[in-house]
Amino acid sequence: MLAELCCERRPGFWRMLLVAVCMALLGCLRAQGLQGHVSVVLLGATGDLAKKYLWQGLFQLYLEEAGKGHNFSFHGAALTATEQGQEVVAKILEALSCPKDVTPDRCTELKGQFQRLSQYHQLKTTEDYAALNKDIEALVQRQGLWEAGRIFYFSVPPFAYADIARSINGSCRPGPGAWLRVVLEKPFGHNHQSAQQLAADLGSFFHEEEMYRVDHYLGKQAVAQILPFRDQNRKALDGLWSRHHVERVEIVLKETVDAEGRTSFYEEYGVIRDVLQNHLTEILTLVAMELPFDVGSSEAVLRHKLQVFQALRGLRRGSAVLGQYQAYSEQVRRELHKPAGFLSLTPTFAGVLVHVDNLRWEGVPFLLMSGKALDERAGYVRVLLRNRACCVQSEARWAAEQSACLPRQVVFHIGHGALGGPAVLVSRNLFRPALPRGWEEAAGPPGLRLFGRPLSDFHVYRPEREQDAYSVLISRIFHGRKDSFIATESLLASWAFWTPLLDSLAREAPRLYPGGADHGHLLDFEFSGGQLSFSVQQAEQLVPGPGSAPTPSDFQVLKATYRDGPLVTAWAEELIAKLAGDVEAAAVRAVRRSGQFHLALSGGSSPVALFQQLAMGHYAFPWARTHLWLVDERCVPLWDPESNFQGLQTHLLQHVRVPHYNVHPMPVHRHRRLCAEEDRGAEAYAEDIAALVANSSFDLVLLGMGADGHTASLFPQSPAGLEGEPLVVLTESPSGPRRRMSLSLPLINRARRVAVLVMGRLKREIALLVSRVGHEPRKWPISGVRPASGQLVWYMDYEAFLG
Amino acid sequence: MLAELCCERRPGFWRMLLVAVCMALLGCLRAQGLQGHVSVVLLGATGDLAKKYLWQGLFQLYLEEAGKGHNFSFHGAALTATEQGQEVVAKILEALSCPKDVTPDRCTELKGQFQRLSQYHQLKTTEDYAALNKDIEALVQRQGLWEAGRIFYFSVPPFAYADIARSINGSCRPGPGAWLRVVLEKPFGHNHQSAQQLAADLGSFFHEEEMYRVDHYLGKQAVAQILPFRDQNRKALDGLWSRHHVERVEIVLKETVDAEGRTSFYEEYGVIRDVLQNHLTEILTLVAMELPFDVGSSEAVLRHKLQVFQALRGLRRGSAVLGQYQAYSEQVRRELHKPAGFLSLTPTFAGVLVHVDNLRWEGVPFLLMSGKALDERAGYVRVLLRNRACCVQSEARWAAEQSACLPRQVVFHIGHGALGGPAVLVSRNLFRPALPRGWEEAAGPPGLRLFGRPLSDFHVYRPEREQDAYSVLISRIFHGRKDSFIATESLLASWAFWTPLLDSLAREAPRLYPGGADHGHLLDFEFSGGQLSFSVQQAEQLVPGPGSAPTPSDFQVLKATYRDGPLVTAWAEELIAKLAGDVEAAAVRAVRRSGQFHLALSGGSSPVALFQQLAMGHYAFPWARTHLWLVDERCVPLWDPESNFQGLQTHLLQHVRVPHYNVHPMPVHRHRRLCAEEDRGAEAYAEDIAALVANSSFDLVLLGMGADGHTASLFPQSPAGLEGEPLVVLTESPSGPRRRMSLSLPLINRARRVAVLVMGRLKREIALLVSRVGHEPRKWPISGVRPASGQLVWYMDYEAFLG
Repeated sequence: MLAELCCERRPGFWRMLLVAVCMALLGCLRAQGLQGHVSVVLLGATGDLAKKYLWQGLFQLYLEEAGKGHNFSFHGAALTATEQGQEVVAKILEALSCPKDVTPDRCTELKGQFQRLSQYHQLKTTEDYAALNKDIEALVQRQGLWEAGRIFYFSVPPFAYADIARSINGSCRPGPGAWLRVVLEKPFGHNHQSAQQLAADLGSFFHEEEMYRVDHYLGKQAVAQILPFRDQNRKALDGLWSRHHVERVEIVLKETVDAEGRTSFYEEYGVIRDVLQNHLTEILTLVAMELPFDVGSSEAVLRHKLQVFQALRGLRRGSAVLGQYQAYSEQVRRELHKPAGFLSLTPTFAGVLVHVDNLRWEGVPFLLMSGKALDERAGYVRVLLRNRACCVQSEARWAAEQSACLPRQVVFHIGHGALGGPAVLVSRNLFRPALPRGWEEAAGPPGLRLFGRPLSDFHVYRPEREQDAYSVLISRIFHGRKDSFIATESLLASWAFWTPLLDSLAREAPRLYPGGADHGHLLDFEFSGGQLSFSVQQAEQLVPGPGSAPTPSDFQVLKATYRDGPLVTAWAEELIAKLAGDVEAAAVRAVRRSGQFHLALSGGSSPVALFQQLAMGHYAFPWARTHLWLVDERCVPLWDPESNFQGLQTHLLQHVRVPHYNVHPMPVHRHRRLCAEEDRGAEAYAEDIAALVANSSFDLVLLGMGADGHTASLFPQSPAGLEGEPLVVLTESPSGPRRRMSLSLPLINRARRVAVLVMGRLKREIALLVSRVGHEPRKWPISGVRPASGQLVWYMDYEAFLG
Repeated sequence: MLAELCCERRPGFWRMLLVAVCMALLGCLRAQGLQGHVSVVLLGATGDLAKKYLWQGLFQLYLEEAGKGHNFSFHGAALTATEQGQEVVAKILEALSCPKDVTPDRCTELKGQFQRLSQYHQLKTTEDYAALNKDIEALVQRQGLWEAGRIFYFSVPPFAYADIARSINGSCRPGPGAWLRVVLEKPFGHNHQSAQQLAADLGSFFHEEEMYRVDHYLGKQAVAQILPFRDQNRKALDGLWSRHHVERVEIVLKETVDAEGRTSFYEEYGVIRDVLQNHLTEILTLVAMELPFDVGSSEAVLRHKLQVFQALRGLRRGSAVLGQYQAYSEQVRRELHKPAGFLSLTPTFAGVLVHVDNLRWEGVPFLLMSGKALDERAGYVRVLLRNRACCVQSEARWAAEQSACLPRQVVFHIGHGALGGPAVLVSRNLFRPALPRGWEEAAGPPGLRLFGRPLSDFHVYRPEREQDAYSVLISRIFHGRKDSFIATESLLASWAFWTPLLDSLAREAPRLYPGGADHGHLLDFEFSGGQLSFSVQQAEQLVPGPGSAPTPSDFQVLKATYRDGPLVTAWAEELIAKLAGDVEAAAVRAVRRSGQFHLALSGGSSPVALFQQLAMGHYAFPWARTHLWLVDERCVPLWDPESNFQGLQTHLLQHVRVPHYNVHPMPVHRHRRLCAEEDRGAEAYAEDIAALVANSSFDLVLLGMGADGHTASLFPQSPAGLEGEPLVVLTESPSGPRRRMSLSLPLINRARRVAVLVMGRLKREIALLVSRVGHEPRKWPISGVRPASGQLVWYMDYEAFLG
């Protein structure tokens, strides 16, 4: 009756009052240990996943929790008609298995109890949901209980989400004081945009704390062990878990199966969306995050996870290598009825190099790798420590347990592989780990070698009882452990990270490989200067390629002319590489000539790639003798993300050694004001240039070109800086932030060399136009760039040049 | 007659004229291919080295060069009386051996020729040298030749150098147009000072180009091969030979012999002076130097070598680990008649971590290691490349020649060891090297493992003909190849590098080890944060230690009070470590409180160690939110080596990521003037502080204390900055550079926390004095440091505190 009173819906003031009273009373009941009722609704109860894992997980939950004062009902639901659905569910329930330590008789008894608590509902319409709601309320009332909460497990295709969500939200929410948890299965979108859309849709029905997005890898025992292991071994790991000691982190999921029978799904997703964006990325965050003080705090775990995403270095096309097993295209043609000539570009193998650019992990490669039709099924995270030791005796005398020179590593072995199941391995010459309850020390198969060493070199720990991921996760849902699920922010951060790579790879032909164990070193890959590439440069023709794979010569740099000046044109990355090489050559020449190199740089996005290139390679660059000047600046504080200087700082200055006093930000922020005329910032910059740069002639000025023909911050139809005396001027941009400071055309034209970098399809039209116009700086400021005695070189990528 | 005319000494104008004519005539003779005569004088011709290597080397020279139009005479010389000396030399010559491909008959013939050209001279007095000079001149004249040059090989103890040098210079120089080469054997001094003295002494007799200082390791074939190998494989190595690819470089020389019988020498030198300062350092420069365009150019090689020395990071006590074989002290007691309780501190084993701080090698550890009484005799340089590959198949399937995941290394095997002789090894999965004339591909003993891999994993190259180092060097002396010898500048640079370490280790007790193969992992060492330490922390008591070796607890930080404030005191390195930890803690607190950390730093030498400590460890330091201010500055441009800012830049800023705009150098250099009152730099700095630092209260101010009681740049008896309004002032130092800018006492005293760092014996007196005085800032400005509401902590090392 109390429950009835509490859960009935009454309007206005009375309702609020009642809610308050009910909540207080419920609190009392709970405090007295009276049973709360939890209803679990499994949507898609007759589907494959439910059949294979979810019902079993629910049964497991029942076995674990029913004895602890929890009261359950289980509701299988699907679109299937009631009678038919009941039959299917009954069969599934009959096939449930008990833990090993339960006798057959007891098992029969337990299954019987569970079956009596479980029933099937056809859920199609909003009315069906309202009826379910009534059923649950009646059940709770009938038993004289109070309702603790409801779990809705969405084991349905994503297109069905919105309708179901609306129905639950409208007709089947539990009453006040009881919680609602909806459990969602991937895919959670196809890219950043669709994930945002999906999240927004769900967000209109559920609160963030109500949603439990499943990545079942987070339920794998070895993965679920990462944070507890780091926590329990804090002291030993504290000094080791950083760039100072970690050589690399490998996060690997290899499969032997291929995509046959599932190509309609796989062709849409490919290996990056299927495995890397979710499973491997989640694992990456668990390994890389700053360890929260309380690893059980979902809020802290989420916050630290998001910090990892913030620190990830953006992926570029060169961050990945892709493969496709030879039979894949044929399978797609067959299953999806494609024409005979159809060749799929979907990758079934990927290796990706990820960098976490914070002080803890800077420079440590995180290698993510997954593929189908490989030589073995195995999943693991391997943290390999650097060898920092020097062993004095000859190797033959090293004792494995003591030698600091043998590899030292921590491995979270997720499953399968030579070990055949979950395990945590720690090299014996590293430390002896503490492991939490439920794990035990174990020996592996004798003679086994793993990760370069005999298994006997490791402390090996395994769970006392292997549990499948869904059982683990269902228990965690029940206990409200949100840290084992994907929060919306975290999901979107992951998609924001992966989507640019997916876009840039969309038309990339993967390297073909024979399935199974025959691919030799064909898929081995290496990293260098932030780029990944296959180790075997020329793919041996083990299998015929889909058309002709692009070869290096396809990307060769073309030389031509543009506006009577030399033009360098290539695909974007090659263009940047060429430009970086030319900048370095100019620097070396200038330093040889005058002891200094004066380089003026533009802001914007195109130069970022150049900065990165210069920062990562080019270690012979004479940075100590280079002066960096800004071509233009926005009137914002230097630490504003909009500031051109900020881009320079993030992408270049932090990585090279330019003396502080050789860096010359534009003084747009003086006396706590932005670009005030009376602060004479432009004049001061001009004076600095005049004092330090011989003849105010920069050795190299790097410019861009806007779609409106502007360059530096010199805009069409605005006279400032196009001619006349001032070397540095304040200007107005047609778009925000409007106020700018800029080198003037006359100053730019005094340079020894000017490089104009033009990239991307959006520049196509203006590139075409400017190729034809004469000297009309008031219409197209870029046309006024004509160094009096220096050289002008155009760097245009194919997208800008050819459209 | 011509020779006589040329070589006779005549005064004044006539002499100059004659010299010019003679030179021209000699040029003609040479052009016509007429034989020039070379005299080789071997000083110490009856000694051990001469007996074992030098005569054989001279014979070798004769065999190689006599047929090529060179004419020789060989003069053995010593203090021994003529007849006796002749006998000894005759015996040595009789025992010379020919190359393997020479028949016995032919060998006898060749040896006969060589014996006829060789004679013994007793050389004691200046007259003896003058007589030798006459003999040589007569010989040249008699044979109708011209004199090409003279080689004097000093195989004598260093104390004899000066007299001999004076005699040669005064009485036995060849005439004009002929060269003089004096060959010197180590030791070249005992530390930087003595090496300078020795160099100055020799410099008064010989020109730099006349001196050939032998480091016989430069004649070892594998060492002599380093530059040619790098040169011939330029293309393959160009990308690899840098911090981007090299994981570490090991330069190792292990001996099985001990110092028995040589302790009188060894006790003076120890392993660092005996092996590391010379042999291993020379090898280091060959590996690390920028490869000259022409590796045959002695001048370029020397220049590039010196650049390496300039880039070496200074060694600290923590840069080395030392050992001594157990029997050593007993040997010293016996041989040097020491009392029973005598324990030597001389190291017979050392491992040293060297960093080359340039863009090519930054962060790559160069590990130098040498010792006596070890488990094997072996010498090698090993360049281990980083593993940058990820191999997709399971390890069992890797093919060694193709797998990018197996170790990749280049080894210059100097001699002995398992290979038994010189060799160059290149991993087959790396590249196939080109080797120069005289080297051939070879197979090693089957089944041999080296450097973690079977020998079959390497391309192995060995010299077609093994040559001992002295033969190689004698040939190079003859050909004037100065790049194989130690130039004075290079020698002094090496001593300047090693001497501070030797000084700081002088009283360090080495770890004792049993000789031979029994020391297990006792001597293995590891590096971390720029420090070396033994891997096995607590020396197992395999052998009893000399007294009690210092244990970590000996270095524990003491806490006490000083001037009523907390005092932290410890040995210098521990003190710095503690201070760095406290600075980090303050930073973390400040950032947590206000989002920023404002740190004001002093210049001078003591903070350098702090900067290095902060730069190398402390990766969790919130640099991105730290503002760095200067406590004081000298009125010099910021790039002047005297500038405090320059020290901050070199030792801290280059290694951490402080945003450009958070770094606040003092504006001592405005409008191209230094500290001009009218430029109002002090006021501008005060305004910046007021604008950015809440209440102008720094979170932490780090001060020092001068021997005169000054702090910051506030000097006794000078009122500026001791009281009153101005936050920043211009002051005058009693010593140069006199003009300074400084935070004022009132500003300092507004800080939340002030740390005063006092280190070194020279501070003892003032530390004692200041401990007793009251508030007398005009006499002792440091006594005026009394934060109004903040905390003052004193950090004093034992040398300053205890004297």
